[in-house]
Amino acid sequence: MAGKNESVREPGRFAYDGLERLFHERARLSILSSLAAHADGLLFNDLKSLCSLTDGNLSRQLSTLQEGGLVEVWKGFKKNRPQTLCRLTPQGRVRFLEYVNELEHVVADAVKSKPHAESRAVRGRAATA
Amino acid sequence: MAGKNESVREPGRFAYDGLERLFHERARLSILSSLAAHADGLLFNDLKSLCSLTDGNLSRQLSTLQEGGLVEVWKGFKKNRPQTLCRLTPQGRVRFLEYVNELEHVVADAVKSKPHAESRAVRGRAATA
Repeated sequence: MAGKNESVREPGRFAYDGLERLFHERARLSILSSLAAHADGLLFNDLKSLCSLTDGNLSRQLSTLQEGGLVEVWKGFKKNRPQTLCRLTPQGRVRFLEYVNELEHVVADAVKSKPHAESRAVRGRAATA
Repeated sequence: MAGKNESVREPGRFAYDGLERLFHERARLSILSSLAAHADGLLFNDLKSLCSLTDGNLSRQLSTLQEGGLVEVWKGFKKNRPQTLCRLTPQGRVRFLEYVNELEHVVADAVKSKPHAESRAVRGRAATA
């Protein structure tokens, strides 16, 4: 395989420093992906359902993401009922895309490592590479 | 955006159940990616360097991956010095590719969510989609 010995010698080649824990933890990754796909934001209950999280876990993770400046949380009313609206901050959107870039490197490395793709998605990706 | 309301109604749409912690934890993801890229296996010290891990952390993570049946660890000698060889098991390779498939979904969701790609890798991917 070309470049194999070269990659062995490159310290940190597979360290993936861009996979910050703030983004990489699965529950938070779910939340960020959901919000990235819904630019206007999502109500707390819709977000909870999309991510299959409990109330407590979602609240906790949202606090962490707010502290990190990635997410904003708004309290308000809709149809006379109190609601919570969550959405990405502009900075959160940019930083999430940077994180996703690093994920792309992981995927690309895995695709390179497997000439005979065994799985559907990897095969599809290899075909376009 | 097409399909926006549809996705809101689909519970668990962004739960990414396939992102098992065994694979997703960053140090283990580094190890698995390194080993996937080196089919013959890697010596402990080369793996340590590629992943930018300490001896202790690499040992601990390798034990976890061994218990999960993903990695095998061999003790032996090379140039009269004791060495440790690490490599993926066949099952480890298949399951790692399944995990990478799920990562691809995360990346694809992020790409869909951003018509005007802000980052290089995401833009590259969008162009081939």
